[in-house]
Amino acid sequence: MSNLQNDLFLRACRRQAVERTPIWIMRQAGRYLPEYRAVRAKTDFLTMCKTPELATEVTLQPIDIIGVDAAIIFSDILVIPEAMGMHLEMHEGKGPIFPKPIRNDDDANQLMNIDPTKELKYVLDAVSLTKKELNSRVPLIGFSGSPWTLLTYMVEGRGSKNFAEVKKMIYNDPALAHRILEKLSDVIADYLSAKIEFGCNAVQIFDTWGGVLSPHDFLEFSFQYVEQIISKIKRKDEPVIFFAKGVHHNIDKLANIGADVLGLDWTMDLGEARKKVGDRVALQGNLDPTVLYGSKDYIHQEVKRVLKSFGKGNGHVFNLGHGVLPDIAPDNVKALVGFVKEESVLFHRRDAEAQRN
Amino acid sequence: MSNLQNDLFLRACRRQAVERTPIWIMRQAGRYLPEYRAVRAKTDFLTMCKTPELATEVTLQPIDIIGVDAAIIFSDILVIPEAMGMHLEMHEGKGPIFPKPIRNDDDANQLMNIDPTKELKYVLDAVSLTKKELNSRVPLIGFSGSPWTLLTYMVEGRGSKNFAEVKKMIYNDPALAHRILEKLSDVIADYLSAKIEFGCNAVQIFDTWGGVLSPHDFLEFSFQYVEQIISKIKRKDEPVIFFAKGVHHNIDKLANIGADVLGLDWTMDLGEARKKVGDRVALQGNLDPTVLYGSKDYIHQEVKRVLKSFGKGNGHVFNLGHGVLPDIAPDNVKALVGFVKEESVLFHRRDAEAQRN
Repeated sequence: MSNLQNDLFLRACRRQAVERTPIWIMRQAGRYLPEYRAVRAKTDFLTMCKTPELATEVTLQPIDIIGVDAAIIFSDILVIPEAMGMHLEMHEGKGPIFPKPIRNDDDANQLMNIDPTKELKYVLDAVSLTKKELNSRVPLIGFSGSPWTLLTYMVEGRGSKNFAEVKKMIYNDPALAHRILEKLSDVIADYLSAKIEFGCNAVQIFDTWGGVLSPHDFLEFSFQYVEQIISKIKRKDEPVIFFAKGVHHNIDKLANIGADVLGLDWTMDLGEARKKVGDRVALQGNLDPTVLYGSKDYIHQEVKRVLKSFGKGNGHVFNLGHGVLPDIAPDNVKALVGFVKEESVLFHRRDAEAQRN
Repeated sequence: MSNLQNDLFLRACRRQAVERTPIWIMRQAGRYLPEYRAVRAKTDFLTMCKTPELATEVTLQPIDIIGVDAAIIFSDILVIPEAMGMHLEMHEGKGPIFPKPIRNDDDANQLMNIDPTKELKYVLDAVSLTKKELNSRVPLIGFSGSPWTLLTYMVEGRGSKNFAEVKKMIYNDPALAHRILEKLSDVIADYLSAKIEFGCNAVQIFDTWGGVLSPHDFLEFSFQYVEQIISKIKRKDEPVIFFAKGVHHNIDKLANIGADVLGLDWTMDLGEARKKVGDRVALQGNLDPTVLYGSKDYIHQEVKRVLKSFGKGNGHVFNLGHGVLPDIAPDNVKALVGFVKEESVLFHRRDAEAQRN
C-alpha cells in the first residue's frame, strides 16, 4: 500500500489498527520554532510560501525537531484569493490584510478564474520537493481553507470580531455570496486534487470560521460547499480531514460530509462526538492549545485526559484543537509529542493484553 | 404578585402562560441608539455608570424608543474589579483596559474586600431612580459578569484572542485563580442580592467567556462559582438568568445550576436545547445579532425561525444570542421587537384556538 516508514497517521485516518495514536500539530511549521523564525528573518512570509526551498525547509523542521507523525506543507490558506488577484499584505502579529476587500458584484467580477496547477504551481513544487526530502519518513498533508473561511477574509479584508461585512453579504445579497463560494469551491477541489497528484498523502480543509454561523447558515454557506469539494477531489485512498472550529452543532451531519476524519476543537468532548459519529469517520484533536502554557506535568495529565476521552480503539489522530500559538515553548511541544507516543500505547493494546498488564 | 403593567418577561422566566413571547435585548441601552450617543457625548463612559441620573436616562431609552418588555440597568460588568481597586480605562471602540492586570499573588492581594452596598452604591441608586421613573411599566433586570468572565478581564488586562494570560494562571497556579474566583463570587452574590433589594425584578449573570474553556475547565473555573452565587442570592421570586456564550457542552448540567432561565447564543438550536433541559429552566435567546444587518423582510423571516425552533408553549424569552452591535440601525431593532410581538402570539394560543384559525 504505502512505502512509508511511519504510516500511523494514515492508518488512524482510515480507522485501521495502530500500535499507538499518531500526532501532528496544526501550525507545527510555525513561529514558535526558533528554526522557523531564523528562516523567516531572512524574508517575508509570502516569499517563504512562494519559494519551494524555503517552504520545504520549514515544513521539515517539526519532523526532525518535534517528532510528529506527519508533515503538513508550509503555506497559507490565503494564497488562493491572492492567486485570484487580490492584493494580500501579511503583517506579523496583526494578521493578513486585503486592502481591497470584496463587497459587491464588481469586486467579485474582478476575481480571476485560476488553474491551481499554474497560478499555484509554487505550492505544488514545494510539495514535490518536500516529498523528496521527506524520503518516505512520514506522510505529507496538503490543505486548503474552506470556501466560507476564505470568503470571510476576502469580504472582511482583515481580522474581524463580529464578521459584520460577510454577514451583511450573506443576509442582503446571498446570491453574490453563493456565486463566490461556488467559484472558490471549484478552485479548491482542483487545488487539493493537484496536491494529491503531486504527492500529498492526505488533505485537510480548514473551516476556521464555520462556527460564527448559526446552525442553518452553516449548512447553507459552508457545509454544502465542503461536501461538494470532497466529492470532486481526485484521489485514490488519500484521506480527507475536515476541521471545523466551533461547529458543535451538526456533528451528525458532518460525519456524512464525505470526509474520512473530522477535526474537533477543544470545546468538544471526543467521547461524546465518537458516540455521535460511530464508525463513519475518524476523529482528530483536541487538546486546548493553551494547555501548552502549562507545566510538563500538566501537559502530561491533559494528554491522558484527551486519550481517555476518545477511549480505546482505532480512529484517533492526536492534535491540538486549534493551531499551536506563536509564544509556546518548543520544549513543551516536544514533551506533548513524547507523552502521546508513550501514553497512547495503552489505548491500542488488545483487551487480553491490557488485562494481563 | 406584581403590580407591573407588563409582566410578560417575568412570567416567561417562570415558564408561566403568556399571551405572546416577551423580548428584551442584550446591550439595548447602548451605542446603536442616537439618544444614547447624545448622552455619551457629554461625558465619559464610567461617569455615565456612576451618575444615577444618566444611567437611568439611558436605561429608559429602549423602553420608550424600541418597545422592549424589560429594562436592564445601564452599567458595566467591570465596575466590580474597578471598585476592588483596579484602575479601569474605557476606550470606545478599543474596549476596556486594566493597565495593571492581576498576574500573581501580590497583585491579587491588592484587591480590596468590598461591600457592594457601599462601594457600588451608585449602581443601587441608579436602580432606585430607574424603578421610580419606570413607574411599573416593565420589570427591571440587574446584572453581573460571572467570576470567570471578570477574571479573564482582570488577568488579561485588555481584549484577548487566545486568553493566554488567564489560561497560564489556571494551568500553572490554579490555587491563585480559585482564590480570586472565590472572592469575586462573594462580592457578586452580595451585589446581585443588593440589586434585588433595591428593586430589580430579575438578575442576569453574564459568562461571556465561559466558552473559551474546555468542558471540564468550564465546570471547575466557571460553573461551580455561578452555582455558588445563585444559591447565595437573597431573593423572593425574582428569576435568575444565566447567559453563557459558547457553552454548548454541559447544557444538561447548566439546567441544574440553580438559574430559572438559561441564555443561549445563536449557535445553539433552541429546540434541541429545550429537549435537553425539559421543564427545569426557561430559555432566552437566540437570534444571531448580525441578522439585524439584514433587511426587515430577512429579520422577519429569522424571527419566525427562532420562534419556531423553540416551538409552542411557555418558557421562552426572546433575545439576541449576544449584545446588539453598535452600528445596527435602531429602526431594525424596533422592527425586530414588532415582529416578535406580532408573530409570537401564534405560539401561545391554546391548541383548540390554534386549530380553529
